[in-house]
Amino acid sequence: MAYFESKRVAGRHFLQIPGPSTVPDRILRAIDNPTMDHRGPDFGLLGKQVLAKIQTIFKTAQPVVIFPASGTGAWEAALCNTLSPGDRVLMCETGWFAHLWQEMAGRLGIVTDLVKTDWRRGADVEQIAERLAADRAHAIKAVAVVHNETSTGATSRIAEVRRAIDDAKHPALLLVDTISGLASVDYRHDEWGVDVTVSGSQKGLMLPPGLSFNAVSQKALKASEGAKLPRSFWDWKPMIAANATGYFPYTPATNLLYGLDTACDMLLEEGLDNVFARHERHAEATRRAVRHWGMEVQCQDPRHYSPVLTCVRLPEGHSANALRATILERFNMSLGNGLGQLNDRAFRIGHLGDFGDLQLMGTLSGVEMGLRAAGVPHSPGGAQAALDYLSGNA
Amino acid sequence: MAYFESKRVAGRHFLQIPGPSTVPDRILRAIDNPTMDHRGPDFGLLGKQVLAKIQTIFKTAQPVVIFPASGTGAWEAALCNTLSPGDRVLMCETGWFAHLWQEMAGRLGIVTDLVKTDWRRGADVEQIAERLAADRAHAIKAVAVVHNETSTGATSRIAEVRRAIDDAKHPALLLVDTISGLASVDYRHDEWGVDVTVSGSQKGLMLPPGLSFNAVSQKALKASEGAKLPRSFWDWKPMIAANATGYFPYTPATNLLYGLDTACDMLLEEGLDNVFARHERHAEATRRAVRHWGMEVQCQDPRHYSPVLTCVRLPEGHSANALRATILERFNMSLGNGLGQLNDRAFRIGHLGDFGDLQLMGTLSGVEMGLRAAGVPHSPGGAQAALDYLSGNA
Amino acid sequence: MAYFESKRVAGRHFLQIPGPSTVPDRILRAIDNPTMDHRGPDFGLLGKQVLAKIQTIFKTAQPVVIFPASGTGAWEAALCNTLSPGDRVLMCETGWFAHLWQEMAGRLGIVTDLVKTDWRRGADVEQIAERLAADRAHAIKAVAVVHNETSTGATSRIAEVRRAIDDAKHPALLLVDTISGLASVDYRHDEWGVDVTVSGSQKGLMLPPGLSFNAVSQKALKASEGAKLPRSFWDWKPMIAANATGYFPYTPATNLLYGLDTACDMLLEEGLDNVFARHERHAEATRRAVRHWGMEVQCQDPRHYSPVLTCVRLPEGHSANALRATILERFNMSLGNGLGQLNDRAFRIGHLGDFGDLQLMGTLSGVEMGLRAAGVPHSPGGAQAALDYLSGNA
Amino acid sequence: MAYFESKRVAGRHFLQIPGPSTVPDRILRAIDNPTMDHRGPDFGLLGKQVLAKIQTIFKTAQPVVIFPASGTGAWEAALCNTLSPGDRVLMCETGWFAHLWQEMAGRLGIVTDLVKTDWRRGADVEQIAERLAADRAHAIKAVAVVHNETSTGATSRIAEVRRAIDDAKHPALLLVDTISGLASVDYRHDEWGVDVTVSGSQKGLMLPPGLSFNAVSQKALKASEGAKLPRSFWDWKPMIAANATGYFPYTPATNLLYGLDTACDMLLEEGLDNVFARHERHAEATRRAVRHWGMEVQCQDPRHYSPVLTCVRLPEGHSANALRATILERFNMSLGNGLGQLNDRAFRIGHLGDFGDLQLMGTLSGVEMGLRAAGVPHSPGGAQAALDYLSGNA
Repeated sequence: MAYFESKRVAGRHFLQIPGPSTVPDRILRAIDNPTMDHRGPDFGLLGKQVLAKIQTIFKTAQPVVIFPASGTGAWEAALCNTLSPGDRVLMCETGWFAHLWQEMAGRLGIVTDLVKTDWRRGADVEQIAERLAADRAHAIKAVAVVHNETSTGATSRIAEVRRAIDDAKHPALLLVDTISGLASVDYRHDEWGVDVTVSGSQKGLMLPPGLSFNAVSQKALKASEGAKLPRSFWDWKPMIAANATGYFPYTPATNLLYGLDTACDMLLEEGLDNVFARHERHAEATRRAVRHWGMEVQCQDPRHYSPVLTCVRLPEGHSANALRATILERFNMSLGNGLGQLNDRAFRIGHLGDFGDLQLMGTLSGVEMGLRAAGVPHSPGGAQAALDYLSGNA
Repeated sequence: MAYFESKRVAGRHFLQIPGPSTVPDRILRAIDNPTMDHRGPDFGLLGKQVLAKIQTIFKTAQPVVIFPASGTGAWEAALCNTLSPGDRVLMCETGWFAHLWQEMAGRLGIVTDLVKTDWRRGADVEQIAERLAADRAHAIKAVAVVHNETSTGATSRIAEVRRAIDDAKHPALLLVDTISGLASVDYRHDEWGVDVTVSGSQKGLMLPPGLSFNAVSQKALKASEGAKLPRSFWDWKPMIAANATGYFPYTPATNLLYGLDTACDMLLEEGLDNVFARHERHAEATRRAVRHWGMEVQCQDPRHYSPVLTCVRLPEGHSANALRATILERFNMSLGNGLGQLNDRAFRIGHLGDFGDLQLMGTLSGVEMGLRAAGVPHSPGGAQAALDYLSGNA
Repeated sequence: MAYFESKRVAGRHFLQIPGPSTVPDRILRAIDNPTMDHRGPDFGLLGKQVLAKIQTIFKTAQPVVIFPASGTGAWEAALCNTLSPGDRVLMCETGWFAHLWQEMAGRLGIVTDLVKTDWRRGADVEQIAERLAADRAHAIKAVAVVHNETSTGATSRIAEVRRAIDDAKHPALLLVDTISGLASVDYRHDEWGVDVTVSGSQKGLMLPPGLSFNAVSQKALKASEGAKLPRSFWDWKPMIAANATGYFPYTPATNLLYGLDTACDMLLEEGLDNVFARHERHAEATRRAVRHWGMEVQCQDPRHYSPVLTCVRLPEGHSANALRATILERFNMSLGNGLGQLNDRAFRIGHLGDFGDLQLMGTLSGVEMGLRAAGVPHSPGGAQAALDYLSGNA
Repeated sequence: MAYFESKRVAGRHFLQIPGPSTVPDRILRAIDNPTMDHRGPDFGLLGKQVLAKIQTIFKTAQPVVIFPASGTGAWEAALCNTLSPGDRVLMCETGWFAHLWQEMAGRLGIVTDLVKTDWRRGADVEQIAERLAADRAHAIKAVAVVHNETSTGATSRIAEVRRAIDDAKHPALLLVDTISGLASVDYRHDEWGVDVTVSGSQKGLMLPPGLSFNAVSQKALKASEGAKLPRSFWDWKPMIAANATGYFPYTPATNLLYGLDTACDMLLEEGLDNVFARHERHAEATRRAVRHWGMEVQCQDPRHYSPVLTCVRLPEGHSANALRATILERFNMSLGNGLGQLNDRAFRIGHLGDFGDLQLMGTLSGVEMGLRAAGVPHSPGGAQAALDYLSGNA
């Protein structure tokens, strides 16, 4: 029996969590090719090709290291390649994932200064600027920001963070997690002067989980020479050396690299700008549905609205988890749960990856039917409001 | 490049023609198994198993012959196994497919008497009764009816046809085409006393095209002994003989049989009655959307409404083909064209096969957005009307 | 559970029957794509492309009709499109499949004159010439020859048959079955002046069963205008008309067409001449193994040795079926059974399709181990003899 | 185009490196299922099921941690969960992979004492015993041994290492890498008193690379409480906590878990003892071929012969890499290269995973044909010697 059909419900499952996103057939078929010799000549061709393609997705001419590991590992790689025990990092707690990254840093022996938010917007650039300005001694070794906060649906403005660092003439490295942002919302590793960009395979890249990335600036590379945190699996140096000829220092996740190669093709065939516009449009349609239902979008700053997912707050006294369970059972759709302080208070709608207008309408219709089925008070017609918006802009 | 993505459009294609229906992943994976020796011992096990399962779908204890050929072939098989050149068959022209079947009969040298309809309802049982009553000499050798007329969305009432034949005490065979009805709408080969039931793989059975079926009564088998139309590939006799041990007289379509085995499992896991109820519900939701838009459903007799597809008439002066082209291009959805006299006047929405509420909402939303994009006058809100109906019954 | 692994045996199954041949992964993945709208614009592109590619495989500039049916159907199509009831056809009984074709002709009302052979060589061209010369009244309407007789491993020399007809100045059509020959051994529909070539998908084309072909000369097309055998499904006329724009008159076997497109690519990438040379080399290696074991190759005329398969006669008193059962059980390999008069007396080794030197060595090693396991007297070392031959020519 | 066929060579590739091994179709199809919600209820069922099955493969009732990362990561996990900077570990340099593991330990700040071998046998248990006896102060915190040394084809006797530790009454932990041994050669985590067993997905488990494992004893768990090496991604504690309900603390490699579930089924259906016996038999057949060719097996101690792979030394003056290149080009087979001091001096034949007698005969035939094609002096007949051995035992 297929794993995704433990009970028989007709129609393909709607996987509308904010990642993993639905893996398109074309990528599943690529992954389904026989595993090849990762030391043979054909692999070198594949390796070089895929390493070049992924640079275009990160908009960088600098190395992108690919780990055969899921995204959390690439967080660790960003930290342990650039920092030493006791180093101080300025982090912005935009939500649950920023919180987890901070927790990880702590476990690795890094001291973290926290810029708090109310979890309803992106990184607070002004506070970052203030903290950096105050840090005359340059004790802060890095600023770490989550680009697209998957727990709240807020997208931080990385170029502004860069400017704040530059304006403060602060030498701190800029570390950015765009695990759920890459290939869904514009991202520019080089232009924005990011030192380490962290990402993963299972969101905008439309792959199953199992690959993660560090795009690395020259400044970060230089920092890695003096960084004292122990590292081996995550070490950039042998990776970048082996990548020069298309190979990897230890066994890569070969079949996912087939998929990555195809994923890059699909994104470039559609055109990255078209991909981003599509996500923006779907996010706006979703917010219109949410407001029509009479509910609140978790993100309150329109400049930070995420094109990738929308986090929806439920009216007081109603359980978001019960709603999600109803929708899963009756309408065969998975939605994201509320994380941390949002647990049971909010749910998240992923509208990312290989996703078109009709998928969005199915999704929003499912939410609306679920609200009714679960007895959550709402104003009917949200799906239609989204449809009206999509039609006017189609 | 994948065949279905000659240009890159995000999101899985919505294949909402009234067949082939979307093939579920689980069936595609079954078909994707290596071809096996069709004379080896494992094949015999598969053959017996799948032949038994398909009988439950036809609701028959009598032989079901499986041809490695698409549905049109099974029409020919039904005719050439039971009739002789010059034989007379009473056919009901319920629409384009009934017309094509009649045309085929003519090409094979069979004389056809036609019961006409206005293509807006199922078979006219009263007229059939009259013709049979008038045929005192029993010149009519068979009555041929299309169960679910795919060109109009009208489902004929086969049990009533049976009763008409019985009431007339007429010895004619009853031949029924349920190519697009089987496994989507209730069908009872034995209980309804059908002599030959014709079906195909690519509709309710959720397979790619390439298999077709004849369920055969004892009376039909007896008729085949005297039938003079030449036949070899379509001949039932060697088929039924070989099937006894699970084999076929010539090379079967092995990989599609893997898929058929899985398709039967999926249908029986959901339960045939649940499958039928699901289709009824989706058809009613669709008709509500259509009426809300201010359009006409082609089928005018509610007793004949098809649960499988809905044929929608466009307002005068608007091109259904232009609408379908717009929807394909902008919303990545295929709809069925109007056939014969309905060409460019109507389009058809398939809501059959592996299809759930969210797929239906995506589909109806796509039609509504298409109507707007193509400038077809309509009253917005049809998708929402469907959603309201589905919610009340979810 | 996978169908091909009803009990767990390690290692991929060796499917060494003379067809279906092993379907390569690349083709299985193509077939595994979602079924598309066979009336939509993308299908027309696919249809035109695949119809053009298949012509290069038949080496013809004339129409190749593709039926959504297995090979036996294409035999029927060749007959019913060109002949009328009572017509006389000269057939060469080269083995079991020629016999079956003749039987089919009889069932369709065609009179067959038989040129017998001892099943140990290809078609007897001299006898054909004599019969045609004797037929002053041109009663013979067609000569039907099996190009590669799958039951015996003898390949008839079609160019010589053509010359015999020409030398006799006889107007008979030339009908050739190359179901198991196409794309494995050289075949030239146009150059050899064949009127109807019959083929199927599951041999040299490396597809699962379910597609079959008629390549059709202008002379055959002309004959079809007067041919009186009833036909509808098999009728060339609507096929060729619809094919002009890449479509089919009734539902095609869409997913197999994806596979056919890929199969043609694979053959043309390797180069047809390389494909043929590979098969010749494997056949010679196989015969050397057989002779080393002290057994007889069924085909006795070296000019007729088939590059596709080798039929091996067992010593008197030993059961070929018991041997095959032992090899299946112990070594997970399917071999072809002896057919007709060769039942239990011979077995057949397929060395066709997507098949390389190592596959051949696995196959021949399996046969040799099976001979020992089944207690069939033989001289060990046949596999090594094949290896020596392959090495000398690698 | 498929990645594994950048040029067209007929016949499936023989991937005879000692891992990744050939992924069977059934596992590829499992992996090819749509990615599911790793927080949803169905995932919990899958997680619990697969975590239970993998314990039976390790022969343990203790936790098996599954990392979404390739095998090298599980080495790091074993070290950083149990040790502190400056800790001393006794390692046995059985070959290249033991060397790499030692190198990694050094990078993580661990002091390594090395027990050297000549790379032609497994771990030197006597020396281990001596070192432990000499370590009165119990400075040695762990003994680390590679069970199946993939670079040389030598399998160390872990039960004897255990006894040596026990006899010395030494409290050191026992860490074992059986990345290439698990599920190919007998392994008993509990019975042998191993504290941490490291393994990976792409060898005996027949999966693509991307999963790795730590089986963990209670003693190791206890050690982890005091271990000071920084860790987060590799930390056992949150893993084991989440695994209790079938979930993971961060995104798991969902699709590979589908494959792992199927891989365990396949191994248990065949029976682990049958799997081990099959590998032993193939290894002995391979060694007979090697000796017949007049070459040396790298492993010199028959008690340490690996059932998983055979490392073959070439005669002086001949390049193993040139031989491998010839075999890849002409016979479409990948063999393992010589590693470290064996580079270009030896090559490695993998005979592991989903592998039967005919695959082995194809493999050995390919090597023998390659020896001839590359002009490496050898005595022909090695493949036949293997066949004779297999036949006598079939």
